[in-house]
Amino acid sequence: MHASDIAVNVPTVTVHDPVAQAVRVMAVSRLPGLIVVDERSRPLMVLPGTQVLRLVVPSAYQEDPALARAVDEPHADRFWLESGDLTVGDCAPRRPVKPVTARADATLLEVAALMARLHSPLVAVVDAGGALLGAVTLERLITSLAVFGATPGDG
Amino acid sequence: MHASDIAVNVPTVTVHDPVAQAVRVMAVSRLPGLIVVDERSRPLMVLPGTQVLRLVVPSAYQEDPALARAVDEPHADRFWLESGDLTVGDCAPRRPVKPVTARADATLLEVAALMARLHSPLVAVVDAGGALLGAVTLERLITSLAVFGATPGDG
Repeated sequence: MHASDIAVNVPTVTVHDPVAQAVRVMAVSRLPGLIVVDERSRPLMVLPGTQVLRLVVPSAYQEDPALARAVDEPHADRFWLESGDLTVGDCAPRRPVKPVTARADATLLEVAALMARLHSPLVAVVDAGGALLGAVTLERLITSLAVFGATPGDG
Repeated sequence: MHASDIAVNVPTVTVHDPVAQAVRVMAVSRLPGLIVVDERSRPLMVLPGTQVLRLVVPSAYQEDPALARAVDEPHADRFWLESGDLTVGDCAPRRPVKPVTARADATLLEVAALMARLHSPLVAVVDAGGALLGAVTLERLITSLAVFGATPGDG
């Protein structure tokens, strides 16, 4: 099994999309993270879902649980809409990080090692030129390991 | 909306379960992580899925992508079964970390801030005595935000 065998097509976002739109894309497609692409559809960033939350949760609440607790329930249900016109690019980490990518012929072990090392439940699969071919989610990887690892060996 | 409104029942593991069993539990229940409980069913650790992979991917492969690439495909499909009799306790982080928990009455903002701060796509919901009531997954949280945040406000 290779990365290309278990990769799926996923919707992507760009740095110009509003962060609220990024949250909706994750929700609709039930993704564990988001791939942010450039104008040529190459992965620019691969954000774990928890880091997508970092885009929408005001940092004061992330740092101070007591402050988050003081917000009443109606506002706490809608905090993420207050990001307004802020875009993914406005909120993304300033420090450039190499996107989490694997080649189409990477083995499941390589993908698993990559996810483990970089704490990323989402890996962008790219061709030799860096163009996006699809994505491997942690769920797909774990399911593939459990299903295919359970079949009789060929040795 | 409170944590208890969107929490779901999830299977748990103990430190005595084999790591291969932990992977199967994640696969079958499509969980983004695992809750490790003690003998009184209280959360001991909440492991993000990528850290569950750390339990099964030999550390040499995590550290050296070239080494992982050198493993042939049949073995790369089954590497996780080589953990054999190793238990979750054998492989879990040595340094004790407070489990990622929220109270039943925590708001969605509190849960989101917790997930963002601790990089955890899974939060154990506990009662005042620390007993496990359920879990909030990142997917449930994001879906709840997207669905309920989109309804007309009450202000």
